[in-house]
Amino acid sequence: MKIGILGTGNVGRTFAEKLSGLGHEVTLGTRNVADKLAETTTDYMGNPPFSDWLKVNGSTRLGTFAEAAAFGEIIINATNGAGSLAALEAAGGKNLAGKVLIDLANPLDHSHGMPPTLISDLSNTTSLGEVIQETYPDVKVVKTLNTMWCGLMVNPAMIAGGNHVNFLSGNDNEAKQTVKNFLYQFGWKEDRLIDLGDITSARGPEAYLPLWLRVWGLKKTGAFNINLAE
Amino acid sequence: MKIGILGTGNVGRTFAEKLSGLGHEVTLGTRNVADKLAETTTDYMGNPPFSDWLKVNGSTRLGTFAEAAAFGEIIINATNGAGSLAALEAAGGKNLAGKVLIDLANPLDHSHGMPPTLISDLSNTTSLGEVIQETYPDVKVVKTLNTMWCGLMVNPAMIAGGNHVNFLSGNDNEAKQTVKNFLYQFGWKEDRLIDLGDITSARGPEAYLPLWLRVWGLKKTGAFNINLAE
Repeated sequence: MKIGILGTGNVGRTFAEKLSGLGHEVTLGTRNVADKLAETTTDYMGNPPFSDWLKVNGSTRLGTFAEAAAFGEIIINATNGAGSLAALEAAGGKNLAGKVLIDLANPLDHSHGMPPTLISDLSNTTSLGEVIQETYPDVKVVKTLNTMWCGLMVNPAMIAGGNHVNFLSGNDNEAKQTVKNFLYQFGWKEDRLIDLGDITSARGPEAYLPLWLRVWGLKKTGAFNINLAE
Repeated sequence: MKIGILGTGNVGRTFAEKLSGLGHEVTLGTRNVADKLAETTTDYMGNPPFSDWLKVNGSTRLGTFAEAAAFGEIIINATNGAGSLAALEAAGGKNLAGKVLIDLANPLDHSHGMPPTLISDLSNTTSLGEVIQETYPDVKVVKTLNTMWCGLMVNPAMIAGGNHVNFLSGNDNEAKQTVKNFLYQFGWKEDRLIDLGDITSARGPEAYLPLWLRVWGLKKTGAFNINLAE
């Protein structure tokens, strides 16, 4: 399938590599293509310059947010949560209309120091996933995978034999099934996918981030997740 | 030991039963003793009238919040989070001073319907645990066990052989060790207790509640918890 990924950071690159390896066609979207290709320094997350990454991932195309959105039959929001609404606006409602949008982002606010808090306008009585759905009512938003490090998102078998959980929230059951089919390609087990309900249920997995961040601070690695004991 | 428990709901009763069974002396604190004993109806959580419970738990005393706090060498906050600060004020700073306060409460706001949200003044950039610690600087607040149903708090072996996790947050390491010693009496395993750090880390476990509430809505039972996969 043709996949448009919004965001060229660690999450976007991880999905581009995985999806290309699975035989999908990928266009990564960014704000300004020339600026992105001109970057020569490692970013604040430790990612090498994008052009270096592109050299070894030549099957991935780079375009504007709008070009990536127009290209994709399915769209993945891999931008940081604070920038997601602006990126989607740049992508353009008409390029997103009718498509499944897999929303991986977390609305983190770094302005209070470390660890970040949630962005107050995008949390508690709402969530980023909900706001995206409200802003683009003809897009099929599915919130998923935001509760873990991106390395695990596309390779759950990396830890505990893949026996840990991932949540899905969204209003459209067919769209959630489409997303599950991708998750199975990554190695997710059917019985570890928890459909929490409609998009308002994204409040739960997004609100989990402050706990994830604390555990991450202890573990010094993202290679952990939660499993349900029952 | 002498334990003062603030709150006579399901959580307070569960701890009173367990702690009495372990040989501790328990006083449960409530706002108004006469009113509590006069209740004749099942409460909104399905708890039978308190006097009925007291008939079969005769070793537990009932007192005011202040009497329970004065009685306890250790205090347990088992009130609902929206009422915790008022209950502690009624308990009185001088009755709490220098003691370990085990804070089980969650700052839930039911005013937006079900599932509840967090109380905005007690979440995200702060937490109930932190606000209690700031309000009573000479109390040793330890946030723990708030991420699960009370039945599991005192009986973790009920599910998954006790292989699931509980978090601790608090500024005083000796107080956290005191709390761990209680947790071991309940059957908690040392390697499933995660010390998240100082009391500001209570933001994480409190923010987890919206996710817990969604999973609880699916499971229709509180007999589940999370475990770490790594």
